Amino acid sequence: MKRTIRVGLLGCGVVGTGILRLLRDNAETIEGRLGAKLEVVAIAARSAERERDPIVPMERLVFDPFVVAEHPDVEIVLEVMGGVEQAGEVVRRALESGKHVITANKALIAERGDVLIPLAEERGLDLYFEAAVAGGIPIIRVLREALAADRILSLRGILNGTSNYILTRMQRDGLAFDEALRLAQEAGYAEADPTLDISGGDARHKLAILATLAFGARVDPADIPTQGIQDVTSVDCRFAQRFGFVLRPLAIAKPTKDGALSLRVHPALLPSSSVLAGVSGALNAVAIEGAMLGPAMITGLGAGALPTAMSVVSDLVDVGRNLLAGAHGRVPSRAFRGQPKARAVDQAGALRSRYYLRFSVKDRPGVLARIAGVLGAFEVSIEQMLQEGGDHETPAQIVILTHLAREADVVSALSEVDRLSHVVAPTMLLRIEEA
Amino acid sequence: MKRTIRVGLLGCGVVGTGILRLLRDNAETIEGRLGAKLEVVAIAARSAERERDPIVPMERLVFDPFVVAEHPDVEIVLEVMGGVEQAGEVVRRALESGKHVITANKALIAERGDVLIPLAEERGLDLYFEAAVAGGIPIIRVLREALAADRILSLRGILNGTSNYILTRMQRDGLAFDEALRLAQEAGYAEADPTLDISGGDARHKLAILATLAFGARVDPADIPTQGIQDVTSVDCRFAQRFGFVLRPLAIAKPTKDGALSLRVHPALLPSSSVLAGVSGALNAVAIEGAMLGPAMITGLGAGALPTAMSVVSDLVDVGRNLLAGAHGRVPSRAFRGQPKARAVDQAGALRSRYYLRFSVKDRPGVLARIAGVLGAFEVSIEQMLQEGGDHETPAQIVILTHLAREADVVSALSEVDRLSHVVAPTMLLRIEEA
Repeated sequence: MKRTIRVGLLGCGVVGTGILRLLRDNAETIEGRLGAKLEVVAIAARSAERERDPIVPMERLVFDPFVVAEHPDVEIVLEVMGGVEQAGEVVRRALESGKHVITANKALIAERGDVLIPLAEERGLDLYFEAAVAGGIPIIRVLREALAADRILSLRGILNGTSNYILTRMQRDGLAFDEALRLAQEAGYAEADPTLDISGGDARHKLAILATLAFGARVDPADIPTQGIQDVTSVDCRFAQRFGFVLRPLAIAKPTKDGALSLRVHPALLPSSSVLAGVSGALNAVAIEGAMLGPAMITGLGAGALPTAMSVVSDLVDVGRNLLAGAHGRVPSRAFRGQPKARAVDQAGALRSRYYLRFSVKDRPGVLARIAGVLGAFEVSIEQMLQEGGDHETPAQIVILTHLAREADVVSALSEVDRLSHVVAPTMLLRIEEA
Repeated sequence: MKRTIRVGLLGCGVVGTGILRLLRDNAETIEGRLGAKLEVVAIAARSAERERDPIVPMERLVFDPFVVAEHPDVEIVLEVMGGVEQAGEVVRRALESGKHVITANKALIAERGDVLIPLAEERGLDLYFEAAVAGGIPIIRVLREALAADRILSLRGILNGTSNYILTRMQRDGLAFDEALRLAQEAGYAEADPTLDISGGDARHKLAILATLAFGARVDPADIPTQGIQDVTSVDCRFAQRFGFVLRPLAIAKPTKDGALSLRVHPALLPSSSVLAGVSGALNAVAIEGAMLGPAMITGLGAGALPTAMSVVSDLVDVGRNLLAGAHGRVPSRAFRGQPKARAVDQAGALRSRYYLRFSVKDRPGVLARIAGVLGAFEVSIEQMLQEGGDHETPAQIVILTHLAREADVVSALSEVDRLSHVVAPTMLLRIEEA
């Protein structure tokens, strides 16, 4: 008779329900690949009140997650309850009770990974988190296994589908930010409170996780210089297009020459012919440059109940294969053995890049000369310039693309420019990412 | 002290040398990920005569591959010697001697997998072949592990970089086929004898392997309807462009409604906005549609010594992790447990598609009417038509895009058209692949 692996599920919202549906609909395929049956024996939900999908076996529902974490029959716990504090406590307890854990919770791994992963490793347990970064894109597995032989030279991702959707609609349809955000919410991409998505906070958590896997470095998300997309206007989208660029929300990790890591999350102008420029709408992507591999890219849906559920259950098959082979802990959770190394993270100011600067000014003679003068004084040289005249009511817009410059110099120059009398609003700064 | 895993290498050409270089250059990274050292203790080369890269340790070179396959110290054998007959014999002997095997040899897996994979599985040995399909793209691992929870609805790939490079140059630079082929050879993409690449034979081997992993089906490469790119002309590229398409060498696997598999390898017209249309030059790509995952795509270099070596050594790390955990055979080589199932493969004629047809005719009144009449008689209806006038020396070209039609009907119609007196050359048929 076939072995049955018993699973506990923490969280019974859309992802949890998606997992139950997937385990039923794809049961035969999964069994054929795993060589064992999977059975969900306990499910923790937040509230008894809520109406549930008929797929949920009500008799297995409990309302205390610790009951699932410590359930004597459960071998593998799936955590899709979200949050950091309680989820962290529950996962810790599950590991201490000898359960393998699979989580879709990026905040949990980014904020508590330093404690939970060593705890799992000490006990020879698997702690997997493919679904925590870029939903259906198997980037964790690719970094941990497929590229195990290579040194990663750079990693650039579109890690937040909501932001990508908003920028895509703004550029393609000329929408204002608020309008595009509203459409993202209607389409179910953005949360009622979209702050984490549009501020870059979500992408920052994901980048911290990927940077640890790709470079073996300990990264505190708070150290990553981050710019959200909330200040991008349709005017910026239009100008970007006129210069041959598209705007994408990027997350970038790259070692610098002196051994530090350059990490950043920000919207960027990409040449419209670049591969990441082709990744539009709610799609996510990760582009990797390997020393041996050369360039490679993976694209797919970064969120949504089904892609996320699929990633959780693929991890479940993987951990199940380890269980059957008695091989827990065969792959280190963070790709490397042992603790990740502390590694300097470049200050934002150290970046050398080309920049897009949009100045809002009163259209008076000499304004451009004064701006150019300040930029020049800080060694920021101008590559292209475009002016769109305003009138008595709206300010004129001057857009400047710079040559390569040091970000600290650009920021210093802008703080001086923004004090000039004819400059009527803070200057918009966007980075240009080559190819 | 750290454990050392001892490796034997079959083949010391560019890929074999690339493996040795990678194992040296990335030694620290690999050791950090694997938790053990890797040592190549024996290398089989074809000839003592050849001049070797200084990275090759001459004292470990032997000229009989069976010595490596049966070497008492070797735990894992890497096969990059190529060919089917001898390589098959050597790999069989290695497995019988209890060695795990990693191969980059697509022909070997496609032609001998039915014998070698069960042999490995019976003995609890790993037989890995990530590098056999699409070089640096980890598609084997993605199908076997990352998508283990999903049902694949379709798989479409650009699996031959040489063909993609040739078609890209023909379209972008208006080159003739022979000229583009010559450039591919100069760039090192195409072999001196490019037959396997341009005939589709290479892509067919790869598709057979992928279809087995994605659908659990036994596929004989000889059953896959295959059209090479050698008859595509720059005229076709130009016409395709005028209709808003690009030409790409595709390999497609998709279950049909009645449970058979539709498999095919051919150049196809793709809408220029489609994701695969963006994959140009020597790049490979695999686009997958999963029932839960939705659409996803991986792109990267499909060939070349370093990407191939990288994939072989990543497999080596994976098999090494199994060795250290005592978990050989934890993942079935072909994603599913047990033997793949025989599954009907659709006859080429069963395909329903839109078609691009280019007729070479003497420019006489009534020619088009007669062609249209024949097509209509076979229920092939015309969606668009374009004629480019010839003169006394060159025939006129009529291009027709059809509505959806059954391939058997189109082929029957063409065999009748090609007998018409004013049709001066066999009609060119290309398939249109939507989105």
